[in-house]
Amino acid sequence: MSTILKGIAASNGIAIAKAYRLVEPDLSYEKKNVQNVDEEVNRLHSAVAESKTELEAIREHALKELGADKAAIFDAHLLVLSDPELLSQIEDKIKNDQVNAEFALKETADMFVTMFEQMDNEYMRERAADIRDVTKRILAHLLQVDIPNPSMIAEEVVVIAEDLTPSDTAQLNREFVKGFATNVGGRTSHSAIMARSLEIPAVVGTKTAIQDIQNGDLVIVNGLTGDVHINPTPEVVEQYKKEQEKFEQQKAEWAKLLHEKTVSKDGHHVELVANIGTPNDLQGVVDNGGEGVGLYRTEFLYMGRDELPTEEEQFESYKAVLEGLNGKPVVVRTLDIGGDKKLPYLPLPEEMNPFLGFRAIRLCLDRQDIFRTQLRALLRASAYGNLKIMFPMISNLNEFREAKSILLEEKDKLIQEGVKVSDEIEVGIMVEIPSTAVLADLFAKEVDFFSVGTNDLIQYTMAADRMNERISYLYQPYNPSILRLVKRVIDAAHQEGKWAGMCGEMAGDEIAIPLLLGLGLDEFSMSASSILKARSQIRTLNKADMEKLAEQALNLTTNDEVLELVKKFTNH
Amino acid sequence: MSTILKGIAASNGIAIAKAYRLVEPDLSYEKKNVQNVDEEVNRLHSAVAESKTELEAIREHALKELGADKAAIFDAHLLVLSDPELLSQIEDKIKNDQVNAEFALKETADMFVTMFEQMDNEYMRERAADIRDVTKRILAHLLQVDIPNPSMIAEEVVVIAEDLTPSDTAQLNREFVKGFATNVGGRTSHSAIMARSLEIPAVVGTKTAIQDIQNGDLVIVNGLTGDVHINPTPEVVEQYKKEQEKFEQQKAEWAKLLHEKTVSKDGHHVELVANIGTPNDLQGVVDNGGEGVGLYRTEFLYMGRDELPTEEEQFESYKAVLEGLNGKPVVVRTLDIGGDKKLPYLPLPEEMNPFLGFRAIRLCLDRQDIFRTQLRALLRASAYGNLKIMFPMISNLNEFREAKSILLEEKDKLIQEGVKVSDEIEVGIMVEIPSTAVLADLFAKEVDFFSVGTNDLIQYTMAADRMNERISYLYQPYNPSILRLVKRVIDAAHQEGKWAGMCGEMAGDEIAIPLLLGLGLDEFSMSASSILKARSQIRTLNKADMEKLAEQALNLTTNDEVLELVKKFTNH
Repeated sequence: MSTILKGIAASNGIAIAKAYRLVEPDLSYEKKNVQNVDEEVNRLHSAVAESKTELEAIREHALKELGADKAAIFDAHLLVLSDPELLSQIEDKIKNDQVNAEFALKETADMFVTMFEQMDNEYMRERAADIRDVTKRILAHLLQVDIPNPSMIAEEVVVIAEDLTPSDTAQLNREFVKGFATNVGGRTSHSAIMARSLEIPAVVGTKTAIQDIQNGDLVIVNGLTGDVHINPTPEVVEQYKKEQEKFEQQKAEWAKLLHEKTVSKDGHHVELVANIGTPNDLQGVVDNGGEGVGLYRTEFLYMGRDELPTEEEQFESYKAVLEGLNGKPVVVRTLDIGGDKKLPYLPLPEEMNPFLGFRAIRLCLDRQDIFRTQLRALLRASAYGNLKIMFPMISNLNEFREAKSILLEEKDKLIQEGVKVSDEIEVGIMVEIPSTAVLADLFAKEVDFFSVGTNDLIQYTMAADRMNERISYLYQPYNPSILRLVKRVIDAAHQEGKWAGMCGEMAGDEIAIPLLLGLGLDEFSMSASSILKARSQIRTLNKADMEKLAEQALNLTTNDEVLELVKKFTNH
Repeated sequence: MSTILKGIAASNGIAIAKAYRLVEPDLSYEKKNVQNVDEEVNRLHSAVAESKTELEAIREHALKELGADKAAIFDAHLLVLSDPELLSQIEDKIKNDQVNAEFALKETADMFVTMFEQMDNEYMRERAADIRDVTKRILAHLLQVDIPNPSMIAEEVVVIAEDLTPSDTAQLNREFVKGFATNVGGRTSHSAIMARSLEIPAVVGTKTAIQDIQNGDLVIVNGLTGDVHINPTPEVVEQYKKEQEKFEQQKAEWAKLLHEKTVSKDGHHVELVANIGTPNDLQGVVDNGGEGVGLYRTEFLYMGRDELPTEEEQFESYKAVLEGLNGKPVVVRTLDIGGDKKLPYLPLPEEMNPFLGFRAIRLCLDRQDIFRTQLRALLRASAYGNLKIMFPMISNLNEFREAKSILLEEKDKLIQEGVKVSDEIEVGIMVEIPSTAVLADLFAKEVDFFSVGTNDLIQYTMAADRMNERISYLYQPYNPSILRLVKRVIDAAHQEGKWAGMCGEMAGDEIAIPLLLGLGLDEFSMSASSILKARSQIRTLNKADMEKLAEQALNLTTNDEVLELVKKFTNH
């Protein structure tokens, strides 16, 4: 039966492929008393054997596709599987207590996990995680439920998930994943940002994709409208293949602007730059005609590893990006960790409201060892290109002053060590906290530039968690309060001869672009894949008209009124 | 040995009494295989018998001191204790598995809990909680650790706790509790607000009171400075008794202003009104010379019960407050539930950031059944006094318009039913979300008044959870961004001929009062116990001078600079 789910269009394009469900399997079971213990022992042995075969295949595949370090984790799992002590204790429990294999397995494994977790030795403690993973796998085989192995995907698929975390996406084989559909999330959730960065069509916040879609169902993900079709008729598939073609043609049209400047109809130039996460994203920036990088999120350097990256490792990454951009500006944001972004080797206390918590610059000013290492790596890399440094989550002037003075200290040290450091590094801040927007006139006297982070600015200004589905209607980029704060930031910058950019999702939004052009924004930083479309749009707009539009919008009362106004004005 | 802990002064006054630790006991144990099962069974029987004796005493005491409904919970616990099936299954487990009583008790009880929790019947599901409580008590006796029984307190004590929740304080016998000291919290945490409302000296955020103080230690809680003395010398006790007297004398001095108006030195009148939680707080308002109620938190009507309060119950409470104030203004805030305030009978999904979540007006507009019942009760009560209705957590004009139109609908219905409703109810909003402060000029055209809720406004504007110890330095009431937003709200109100009040903690703060007077605030709502002190302070200030002070503060760059300025200006 053909069904259509409605979600939020999160990344442009259309994907047509079989569904691959990336879900935590239901591994619940009941304790049972059994008569025939031999049968239970046999069930256990079969499940272990199946797990072993499966793990060997995964290890093999990981070694080939993802490299030795990703494969090593599966070696550790295989080691657990062949531990005679673990297995014999499970067998004993089945026999002595006359219980089912599931119960005996879980009880015994839990005991081992507890034992390992309490050891002083870091290495041994990590074994606890291995035992937990392997137990899950054996349990899945005992219960005959599928356990997803994303690294094994070997055909074109659309991934269906509750949500996608950065570590989920790191495991996916990009070659085969043609699209995403998730139950939760909005346009600014990680899965959405990730999809745009990978240039994969995606629909998020469908609420029920996981419930409604089975493995192998044919799925169309329409990242332009937010529709997800389940098992569509051949006619619908045909129609979407045409849409796909049309989208490709439009992309080809936009591609003609690759080497053009971004200029409004009446000759006003703005910069269209890209948000990136790793040096790997550089190619996308070049391919999409980015005039630089407006936001290099350095968190990814710290993720998917066991310890902090060294100064040298960081230096190499920053240098690669700066050299890759060949003199074009690169705005690097210092570490924004904490909140919903955690590092396994940097334990932070659980917080009741992580979005209002100990994160980003707050953490860096406390953990100066981490901060200074990053700053040194950046300063050293500055000799290789046009570096600008930006501090995240600045909420008051003391924080900026302290961060900047630490930067200058490290700069002096490096110079004394004889290291070459650029003399033209601009130092700016993210404006993503309301207090900072309100005091923009005071900040503008001390910073070199502003970059408005709209994702956070909107959620704090409206006091609404942007990841929370129940109040997603309060994520209102066109609310006049947001436009007024943005205007305040831009005007304050210009008053002091500084520039103002924007690196939130709003900068690439076709409704927001006319308003932002009218408000005088100098730099628009967005997913690389949005740049050519934005350039094409800006070339059709008169800045003078957009100024009038923005002026009107600032005095409207609601998000919807602004939306209507822009649509009318730009004939959408 | 005498020790001094430093915390945050949360409620004025000095308490000297023995410590009563209100802590979750450590009930961890290990599974042990035992040879002598009879001994374990005997241990179990003793622990059960001790638990029974204890529970009977508590039930008796609760019946006498707190009433039959509070005592009923202990009847339910006693019922669990005498359930033969539960006990015999624990015994069987000890014997068959040859395990210690702790393990057998917990395993068996957990099984029963799971069973009850899965039942369809609400009544049976509640039994799961009883079993859990009783299991804890038996376990405590097995492990010979104390379990606190706050309702049994029968001598003067200072309560020492990690933190105090509203339900903890509801159980305390106010006659005997002379002060609080907690490990966590700040000036705006529930325990601090509660202490001020009960007029009990309190120090919060001591970090280690729970670790450093034993039951029975002599403790001095200095709610004026934030010091907590543990086992002080007789000389120190003597000195503090003098301080206590001095504080009483100062209170007597302030009391002379009981029937005076609140007027600045140069003759400007402002209103000093009180924040209250229940009709019980009315006496405090009258005793402290409150000119009305600036914030009636209606949440308490919904707490500590099994179901929503009926329209009739609410009507009686609102009527009692309105009549008790005898024509003085009473600003009632509609239900602000969700976030960190939960109701047992109103299950809400867990949220990652409850402070940025589905709460207050967001919930009320969704659950209109709850909202309309409250509004009807308020409208009916309006005939009995000077009622003003205030909506919490308004973040955009649509929300206010919708809430107001629901109010008008219910008003029309009541009038058609022949019910008398006042024609002069003012309808206003809390300004506690940055977007609303930024758009205050637009809101001022539609609301009758504003009341700035600084506790939330500060945390959202600075993007810093005010309950989070690690970033408590970011709770900056004097940050110029906050002062600018407050000014914006006051100016917008006056522009449209409306009034602006404040009902956050800042309104009663002696550093903030000169600034707020200078900014033109019309109404200051605070803990009743702070009113006379504030009145005494305002009578020493010239409004014209304070205007200059505020003007200077608005252009300073940091919280500390403003603090210094005010201290210098007012010779602190």
